[in-house]
Amino acid sequence: MIDELIIYKNMALVNENYLKLGGRYLFSEIAGKVNAFKVSHPEAKMISMGIGDVTKPLVGAVVDAMHQAVNEMASANTFRGYGPEQGYRFLVEKIIKFDFESRGIHLDPDEVFVSDGCKSDMGNIGGILAKDNIIAVTDPVYPVYVDTNVMDGRSGTLNENGNWSNIVYLPCTAENKFIPSLPSKPVDIIYLCFPNNPTGTTLTKSELKVWVDYALTTGALILFDAAYEAFITEESVPHSIYEIDGAKKCAIEFRSFSKTAGFTGLRCGYTVVPKELITSASTGEKVALNALWNRRQTTKFNGVSYVTQKAAEAVYSQEGRAQCLENIAYYLKNASLVRESLLDMGLEVFGGVNAPYIWFKTPQGIDSWSFFDRMLNELHVIGTPGVGFGPSGEGYVRLTAFGSRENTIEAMSRFQNWIL
Amino acid sequence: MIDELIIYKNMALVNENYLKLGGRYLFSEIAGKVNAFKVSHPEAKMISMGIGDVTKPLVGAVVDAMHQAVNEMASANTFRGYGPEQGYRFLVEKIIKFDFESRGIHLDPDEVFVSDGCKSDMGNIGGILAKDNIIAVTDPVYPVYVDTNVMDGRSGTLNENGNWSNIVYLPCTAENKFIPSLPSKPVDIIYLCFPNNPTGTTLTKSELKVWVDYALTTGALILFDAAYEAFITEESVPHSIYEIDGAKKCAIEFRSFSKTAGFTGLRCGYTVVPKELITSASTGEKVALNALWNRRQTTKFNGVSYVTQKAAEAVYSQEGRAQCLENIAYYLKNASLVRESLLDMGLEVFGGVNAPYIWFKTPQGIDSWSFFDRMLNELHVIGTPGVGFGPSGEGYVRLTAFGSRENTIEAMSRFQNWIL
Repeated sequence: MIDELIIYKNMALVNENYLKLGGRYLFSEIAGKVNAFKVSHPEAKMISMGIGDVTKPLVGAVVDAMHQAVNEMASANTFRGYGPEQGYRFLVEKIIKFDFESRGIHLDPDEVFVSDGCKSDMGNIGGILAKDNIIAVTDPVYPVYVDTNVMDGRSGTLNENGNWSNIVYLPCTAENKFIPSLPSKPVDIIYLCFPNNPTGTTLTKSELKVWVDYALTTGALILFDAAYEAFITEESVPHSIYEIDGAKKCAIEFRSFSKTAGFTGLRCGYTVVPKELITSASTGEKVALNALWNRRQTTKFNGVSYVTQKAAEAVYSQEGRAQCLENIAYYLKNASLVRESLLDMGLEVFGGVNAPYIWFKTPQGIDSWSFFDRMLNELHVIGTPGVGFGPSGEGYVRLTAFGSRENTIEAMSRFQNWIL
Repeated sequence: MIDELIIYKNMALVNENYLKLGGRYLFSEIAGKVNAFKVSHPEAKMISMGIGDVTKPLVGAVVDAMHQAVNEMASANTFRGYGPEQGYRFLVEKIIKFDFESRGIHLDPDEVFVSDGCKSDMGNIGGILAKDNIIAVTDPVYPVYVDTNVMDGRSGTLNENGNWSNIVYLPCTAENKFIPSLPSKPVDIIYLCFPNNPTGTTLTKSELKVWVDYALTTGALILFDAAYEAFITEESVPHSIYEIDGAKKCAIEFRSFSKTAGFTGLRCGYTVVPKELITSASTGEKVALNALWNRRQTTKFNGVSYVTQKAAEAVYSQEGRAQCLENIAYYLKNASLVRESLLDMGLEVFGGVNAPYIWFKTPQGIDSWSFFDRMLNELHVIGTPGVGFGPSGEGYVRLTAFGSRENTIEAMSRFQNWIL
């Protein structure tokens, strides 16, 4: 075993997996192009539909709860020091009641782990899993799933097409209606994100059931990213993977307040690790991932700000829910405007119904980066080239619905007057 | 290479290093004993001097800054979404100016990484380092250093005395005045925490220089935990390891607002990774740890709440600094009361001058847990058994100075009337 091997080299060595990661930072590459354009065109009125960040301020119920919590922290009688690493019970109980019990899913409080956000948890979850698990990701994909597995040593080497030799890719394109096929070779861990970033597409309950059944049959683990759950409008689309029978035995679910309640600048999310989820050591010994994640979080993490947790609790108040839903409806109206405008132009358009992302095929087979450049130079609209999310994203572009209504309308007006 | 090895086992396997960790949770074991005592003695007036958590509320400048930041988040014009993963420049600049430049240390803004706390960073830092580095820790020690290295696969197996086979322990006891000796065999990574948790002892500049020189000579990396820096009262004690020449080439420093400004419930700290700190890959390739930590933080972390960062910024305002120093002085006065009382009783007492911890030798060679039990049962005072921090802590007990003055005085009065 490598961890028993002592080499007296007397020099701190680095985790060499990091050296495999290139300098390919999608959003910094975009920022570089945008900044260069702004310098040469200072007069241009730019509209950003690139990065998936909210723009509407925190809702009133959340703001009130935060002021109240700050006041509590200002008084000796109500001051809170270290809280439970797993999150305060007042928040965990609201999460269970409103996000799960309302859909017929029972969870115990010790199955929910409050954190500083989905990105941290999706990045850190690999730490409790063996290094030689084979992971599968959809293509295109949120880059964090792949990069964190490169860091953890699960990637193998980078191929010429930009894929990693040990990672199994599940293409999602217009051809398969963005429904990934089951992997053609065995995999141990499957990352699924629905509603999907970047494509904005979803799986129905019966489509997601295929994956749960696969995992139950093979012993694979599903890491289900439901960060965009609040945007679901269609009845057939599951909000939680635990709506599918048996999913508690094979899936971890990641949730976030970032898009649900505009918490991108506050940092709060949570991860559900059901106690029924049992996996193995290489010896065959059965291990509950709930206990391992609890050990990870209590040892390498120290909980979320009390003020932030009170803010998150307020998202579940009657007032807070109504206010957050109003913001979601606003963004969804933007999404609908974008979707309809692009369809009117005769483009092939996906997403934008149950998600804040619109994914469209470029006309005339233009590649993603060329189309991105034309949008930037000719429309002064910033999107994201689909190929940045993986090879199967080539020929697509992502737009986000998180801007103001005015900017969204203006951007679509520029599209419609565009001579492509 | 193990990360090239593909095993088609089709079953998610766990990180088996986690299975080596026992259920030995020091503070939950203590909580269990305390709760049992409370049940059988409901009338007892308990005084906790166990857990190192602050009790004084947030200071006025911090409270004002937080209300202001919440208001900014409530308005579309001033709302902040995703911030830089490394922290906002407004905070980083204050950190550099007040914590380093005031001591003649120059740092660039991209050498400081704001985080949700020291515990997270100390736990995650292992991720950028090779698994086969040999680590050294002082004994007694903050358990997080050891447990996170067990998780990361650097520990080897557990010996009967509670030590791990691959970890090098550096005993710190009254016999060596709590100054660890250089390791007798080569090590790659050295954890140092001064002012020390749990002993409350310090190293002078010349004592710390021994370690910096050792690291510079051997290529070892020092992970320097300076979480208790704000409690230093003596001129000879360095506040930052970078006060020692050459330390930027061999040391990472971890800082926290938890004890400095009572942020245990808010979660903010920072880590300094100097760009001069160059280490190696196994091939001999030189690698800057700054770039690796930046990649880690931008990929597996998404920054700290804007509201919390504005709170931290306020710690550096003229008003905030004065208010925080007042709280520190209050805790230090408690520490002094405890120290003097125990000395008066004829006990051997350490710490409590530059730290909120008092570490004392039990009388008559009583073991740590027996003395803990007697304190609990006879004085109704909760401490922490020194052996919980490692074998060299046997025969010692830790008390903390974070209680109220009234409780501290009452606890010491009980000690002084105690017939041991």
